[in-house]
Amino acid sequence: MGTEHVVPHVGRLLVLLPGLGAVTTTFLAGVEAIRRKLAFPFGSLSQLGELEGEGRRIAEALPLAPLEDLVFATWDIFPEDAYEAARQAKVLSERDLAAVEDFLRTIRPMPAVFDPQYVRRLNGPHVKQAPTKRHLAEALCEDIQGALEATGAKRAVMIWCASTEVHCTPAPCHQSLQAFEVALEKNDPAIAPSQIYAYAALRMGVPYANGAPNLSADIPALEELAELNRVPIAGKDFKTGQTFLKTALAPALRRRLLGVQGWFSVNILGNRDGWVLEDEGSFRAKEVTKTGVLETLLPAERYPELYGGLYHKVRIHYYPPRGDAKESWDAIDIIGWMGYPMQIKVNFQCRDSILAAPVVLDLALFLDLAHRAQRSGVQSWLSFYFKSPHVQRGEVVEHDLFVQYERLQQELRSFAALPPLWGVDSATTQRVFQ
Amino acid sequence: MGTEHVVPHVGRLLVLLPGLGAVTTTFLAGVEAIRRKLAFPFGSLSQLGELEGEGRRIAEALPLAPLEDLVFATWDIFPEDAYEAARQAKVLSERDLAAVEDFLRTIRPMPAVFDPQYVRRLNGPHVKQAPTKRHLAEALCEDIQGALEATGAKRAVMIWCASTEVHCTPAPCHQSLQAFEVALEKNDPAIAPSQIYAYAALRMGVPYANGAPNLSADIPALEELAELNRVPIAGKDFKTGQTFLKTALAPALRRRLLGVQGWFSVNILGNRDGWVLEDEGSFRAKEVTKTGVLETLLPAERYPELYGGLYHKVRIHYYPPRGDAKESWDAIDIIGWMGYPMQIKVNFQCRDSILAAPVVLDLALFLDLAHRAQRSGVQSWLSFYFKSPHVQRGEVVEHDLFVQYERLQQELRSFAALPPLWGVDSATTQRVFQ
Amino acid sequence: MGTEHVVPHVGRLLVLLPGLGAVTTTFLAGVEAIRRKLAFPFGSLSQLGELEGEGRRIAEALPLAPLEDLVFATWDIFPEDAYEAARQAKVLSERDLAAVEDFLRTIRPMPAVFDPQYVRRLNGPHVKQAPTKRHLAEALCEDIQGALEATGAKRAVMIWCASTEVHCTPAPCHQSLQAFEVALEKNDPAIAPSQIYAYAALRMGVPYANGAPNLSADIPALEELAELNRVPIAGKDFKTGQTFLKTALAPALRRRLLGVQGWFSVNILGNRDGWVLEDEGSFRAKEVTKTGVLETLLPAERYPELYGGLYHKVRIHYYPPRGDAKESWDAIDIIGWMGYPMQIKVNFQCRDSILAAPVVLDLALFLDLAHRAQRSGVQSWLSFYFKSPHVQRGEVVEHDLFVQYERLQQELRSFAALPPLWGVDSATTQRVFQ
Amino acid sequence: MGTEHVVPHVGRLLVLLPGLGAVTTTFLAGVEAIRRKLAFPFGSLSQLGELEGEGRRIAEALPLAPLEDLVFATWDIFPEDAYEAARQAKVLSERDLAAVEDFLRTIRPMPAVFDPQYVRRLNGPHVKQAPTKRHLAEALCEDIQGALEATGAKRAVMIWCASTEVHCTPAPCHQSLQAFEVALEKNDPAIAPSQIYAYAALRMGVPYANGAPNLSADIPALEELAELNRVPIAGKDFKTGQTFLKTALAPALRRRLLGVQGWFSVNILGNRDGWVLEDEGSFRAKEVTKTGVLETLLPAERYPELYGGLYHKVRIHYYPPRGDAKESWDAIDIIGWMGYPMQIKVNFQCRDSILAAPVVLDLALFLDLAHRAQRSGVQSWLSFYFKSPHVQRGEVVEHDLFVQYERLQQELRSFAALPPLWGVDSATTQRVFQ
Repeated sequence: MGTEHVVPHVGRLLVLLPGLGAVTTTFLAGVEAIRRKLAFPFGSLSQLGELEGEGRRIAEALPLAPLEDLVFATWDIFPEDAYEAARQAKVLSERDLAAVEDFLRTIRPMPAVFDPQYVRRLNGPHVKQAPTKRHLAEALCEDIQGALEATGAKRAVMIWCASTEVHCTPAPCHQSLQAFEVALEKNDPAIAPSQIYAYAALRMGVPYANGAPNLSADIPALEELAELNRVPIAGKDFKTGQTFLKTALAPALRRRLLGVQGWFSVNILGNRDGWVLEDEGSFRAKEVTKTGVLETLLPAERYPELYGGLYHKVRIHYYPPRGDAKESWDAIDIIGWMGYPMQIKVNFQCRDSILAAPVVLDLALFLDLAHRAQRSGVQSWLSFYFKSPHVQRGEVVEHDLFVQYERLQQELRSFAALPPLWGVDSATTQRVFQ
Repeated sequence: MGTEHVVPHVGRLLVLLPGLGAVTTTFLAGVEAIRRKLAFPFGSLSQLGELEGEGRRIAEALPLAPLEDLVFATWDIFPEDAYEAARQAKVLSERDLAAVEDFLRTIRPMPAVFDPQYVRRLNGPHVKQAPTKRHLAEALCEDIQGALEATGAKRAVMIWCASTEVHCTPAPCHQSLQAFEVALEKNDPAIAPSQIYAYAALRMGVPYANGAPNLSADIPALEELAELNRVPIAGKDFKTGQTFLKTALAPALRRRLLGVQGWFSVNILGNRDGWVLEDEGSFRAKEVTKTGVLETLLPAERYPELYGGLYHKVRIHYYPPRGDAKESWDAIDIIGWMGYPMQIKVNFQCRDSILAAPVVLDLALFLDLAHRAQRSGVQSWLSFYFKSPHVQRGEVVEHDLFVQYERLQQELRSFAALPPLWGVDSATTQRVFQ
Repeated sequence: MGTEHVVPHVGRLLVLLPGLGAVTTTFLAGVEAIRRKLAFPFGSLSQLGELEGEGRRIAEALPLAPLEDLVFATWDIFPEDAYEAARQAKVLSERDLAAVEDFLRTIRPMPAVFDPQYVRRLNGPHVKQAPTKRHLAEALCEDIQGALEATGAKRAVMIWCASTEVHCTPAPCHQSLQAFEVALEKNDPAIAPSQIYAYAALRMGVPYANGAPNLSADIPALEELAELNRVPIAGKDFKTGQTFLKTALAPALRRRLLGVQGWFSVNILGNRDGWVLEDEGSFRAKEVTKTGVLETLLPAERYPELYGGLYHKVRIHYYPPRGDAKESWDAIDIIGWMGYPMQIKVNFQCRDSILAAPVVLDLALFLDLAHRAQRSGVQSWLSFYFKSPHVQRGEVVEHDLFVQYERLQQELRSFAALPPLWGVDSATTQRVFQ
Repeated sequence: MGTEHVVPHVGRLLVLLPGLGAVTTTFLAGVEAIRRKLAFPFGSLSQLGELEGEGRRIAEALPLAPLEDLVFATWDIFPEDAYEAARQAKVLSERDLAAVEDFLRTIRPMPAVFDPQYVRRLNGPHVKQAPTKRHLAEALCEDIQGALEATGAKRAVMIWCASTEVHCTPAPCHQSLQAFEVALEKNDPAIAPSQIYAYAALRMGVPYANGAPNLSADIPALEELAELNRVPIAGKDFKTGQTFLKTALAPALRRRLLGVQGWFSVNILGNRDGWVLEDEGSFRAKEVTKTGVLETLLPAERYPELYGGLYHKVRIHYYPPRGDAKESWDAIDIIGWMGYPMQIKVNFQCRDSILAAPVVLDLALFLDLAHRAQRSGVQSWLSFYFKSPHVQRGEVVEHDLFVQYERLQQELRSFAALPPLWGVDSATTQRVFQ
């Protein structure tokens, strides 16, 4: 039992965050509050969880970067510092923000790469101007280099926490690194801002995770670059509220072999994210990631009698009175013995950024660890954190929260040079539960 | 890969069912409807599930008794046949009952062993009279023998589907087989009717499972008898509605390391079970099994910050308008990043007997299989089916639905002489996730 | 106390029903079941209610047409008889339909006036062809005349129970009877099928009510015709499920002077109506009637601190698993003492047609009564039954369910020559509570 | 139009409040915050409502005491001042309390009359000792006299805001004033502390209202004293959360003549009131007031088919995680056309004291107004504010929120010498809607 193949943590880890909105500011304020012993890291597996089978905390068993060594840099389309941005986001109380105001004031966003064609409901003044997307990518690389130097960090990770871009399907320029770089040069409209960030990160050898539902690093061009530069990537769309519960409940229904006839999911939220999702293009991106989860969890082709008629619909509505405190409501129609119908309703009164912030933390620390453990390319063992897990070509997507958890633990154990605990079916790459 | 150590199924399997109420009649009507191709076995793992990792149905991979070979015998305090009992239970529609009326009419209960001190809200005329509890036990043994002969079955299993008895703690007479048999002779009031049934079953070499929350085979005396006669036993309290969902949701919250501050669970139901549970003694038995589940799923001693203040309350209210179509409502108070509170509400409009019937079927078939595989004593791998799993002395109770499922699959694989897939930690008897 | 000014009921009353879908068939089956003493008229004020202040049933105090004297005629775009249509609608059980099958079989729809531009998601073969809309109107008049003769009825009422047409705003041709008749001749696309029905009814001296949200008789041209021919009209959009509850809850919050910050209403339904409402044009018509109710109930201009920020959103989603058994969910954000927020959630698992059928009955009987009492034009005292009450020009719309009820009772009392009980403010035409 | 028969308000009005708990402190903090323009009087009809039919605010049309002229005195079993008590009650935020801390600090409770036999779950040190209940009554009279002198007020009202006492039925000593006074002398255990307060108030000519469900002034002895001393009284049990909604929804169902088969109401709350209500005696008092409301709203004898089988059950559970922010859940089973069942669920996430505080204010001001208008004895026109309205012997209790509102308005109009607007049926004392 050892961790010899993981490069030890030394110095500082720079966390790069495109988007200084509700999620980012909540993450930043929380990390600092925890460092000051003002808060407890609720919701963070990296801080609280145990390595399964070992009876030890993950943080003890593995050389994760400690919170004390985290430093930060962000980009945003508004120039306000993290304290002002946090106040506008209205996630944390004035009192909680006051306790870390000095820290938050020090975090000022760099000008963003932004394109209102991709987020049609937002616009802001704090935006980079450049003749081509290649120039924008280079400007981001310089930003990263500058942030590393300014903070004295030797390593970085980037977590996309900005708004949902419109839904797109992969274009020809996404199919290879070469095509992508030509397209950058040509200012191809098919290249989204989030892809320029991802490209810049990977060019700089910085691991990248995408917390939003739009296409970003999950295109062949950037997968190629990730492998080329030996950098891990992960995505996409943080699994936090309704989908988190859905991927716990559907597996339970599946294990009991109950039929599922319908699943209606509605969300109301009033934050900037809700505003953006009122746009049909952005909603479409989210709809795709949110509705995809049931297809593999409740496979109709395998159990036509149970799931053949499953009608799954997801809707998101902007509802300002709630702000960040969004609410979801699921109506699930199930079928039992003798075909008798039953219903489950779930009402989740959650908080978007409160659930996302510890996911940002875990992803930053685990991606950095994976990087030091010489992993590169798509890290599907991080599926636990995503609505629409980015997997290797040909790999089956796993949505089952509990299987995702086991995979995550398995991989963490491997970082600690511990033998596997589950699913040791060496003959197949597919997970046994599938 | 083989099943050589499992005695093959031949002939008929007699399913013995104390209690001809809602659960039993729904089970019986359903089995017959499935045999007649009128219904699909929704909810039954034994009929529909796959052996994990094998891509084959359990029913193909293992020599389970086929539905065609099941025969039945029941006991009840009312003399009506299964058709009349099913109509009174009002679970299945008149139309569904009509389709199997001829079959249900053939099932007439034997007189029950009953004691109104144990179920204070019921009484009935179809009850055995005998000078001592020993005589009652012997009468049950004769009933079993008679049913085997009448049906031509060579093997039997017994599943307790009768009403919840009052809550009791183990008495001295429960501590050894010898003390128990003396107590039977002396008519000790500490011996409950369900224990006389369990004793008779085990004496006759018949596996026994307890679907109700009261003490039954889970006492040292009957564990001893089970080992002595090489018979498997399992229990207790079918995990069907609210607790089924609770043991899926709590593990999800646990894996995400969210704090849980409160969990309030209320049930309304209007069937005979609801009526019985209005009695404080019977409710107490149910309350114990229903509230026990969170202690190990959300362990306060291990995570005092997350679960230290957890307030868990379960209430059941008799509400006749619903009949068997009971409804549960859970209000769950959780804590996220920076200590911010969130709420989950779950409203389950379920049907008690519809959820329980396939559990009866699975238990009957799996216990019989275990018996033929020479298993004896407490079968904790069947925890998946129970609110309050009966485990070996010293064994940690597992409430996590997903871990229970893996254990169940593991054991089924072992019956098929397949290697384990999970938790191969030979050094400990404790499950890794614990 | 007398009813001398109301012409007595004699002979038969013909109920004309455009649309032989879920609502109409449920209404027809119910009326016949009640006549055969197989059912009780749940939900019908005309059959069960009392005349306030009199201690007598309305049906005793006023000369309503008895159910025995009702006869029926319908139009639909499909030729199936009412029994087949009812089976397809899947509202009533096979068993309930079987009991009145003979009656339902006798009701065969006449070919409909239909235009797929107005209901874009439906089409059918059983449709009238004619060179102009004037010819269509005349064909309907002939249908009415024919039905009167065939049934031997001397009087008729028409209740629109067909699908929701697309949202339109009044066009120039709607502004006067003359313009309307010219437009009929010219086949003006601004004239909707429902308006042709309404026109035909009024031309024939038949009272007309509109159960759908689209514009129909609520245009100056048809109001003019109604006055000219001395015929009462009423509308629009039956108030049955979510809006029924909303117009009971909002008045309660109003009387307690609680602030209301947000009201989010979502509906899921899977019947033909739900399918039609997936079309944006039809949904828009419904959205207008459903969102209008809070503006007057919670008036922002009068109480800016209480309702100034009220965000009201209504959404309807097609969800086939439920069929006619639709479900609504309301999330209401209220404000109390010291500005503290509170929430109300209402989940209504209702049945569209079950709630609408008795409204059809009441409207048919009350409109016929009003006609015999020489009322003509807009009957705003029937607001109790509508989401978007059709009122006289200049009259304030009343949405408060309880005030609507008092107005209805007041008018019924006047038919019985009884003095008013409420709001005798002769100086104003406006209701006191406004 | 005049108010000549109402004695004008001059000087100060003393509000006497037994119990310095959550309700009282929230009331006090709110009144002061409103006076300082820091808060808006959400929920208060006296401050915001209009006189129906007049288009003027009640506060303009009637000579209510203005908030500026209110002064306060309280009693409690704990000696802490109102600021400390408010902090412990955890209803208002620290920030809101800080803004009125100076005011709250000035309010220190007088020692209470208390008997742990009546509130079995509480006890405290700040309690009056005296040889007999007569002495206790006299001590309270002296307290009142002292408070009048200390504050310079000339008039007072008393609103009982202390904990729920155990359920009692009227005893012989409650039947006449004479018997009551003998019993005071004899220390009769049948006299509850709240009755001693009510007696003292009435003896001093101070109007009294009871905000709790226990028997207090609603006994013949105190009704007699109220008439004798020409003082108005009112009660009982503030109608705030679940019952407030119930008495709005049931009238809506009633007007639509829908059947109601069941109504299950559960409450969870975690404040001191919840703790007290865990005691069976106190719960019984609350259960009586909470379940009584449906009997007259949904009268089974009048509509046996609609309400004959109505099963109504109310339960309250102590659930500390919520504190004062209680939550109710109602499951309502209704019946529509053709006997088809439907369900309504209402989840009210309210705040006990936030809803009660403006009721305390309205009652104080309206009772004082009634007193100045020479009303005495039971004021059933205040039923709008109570779960279990105290009415005159022989008077029918009205639970319909909307009829209660009209009665309240009617009476307010009469204080302004305005003619009635509703229900002018002089021949009967019974309300027309009944």
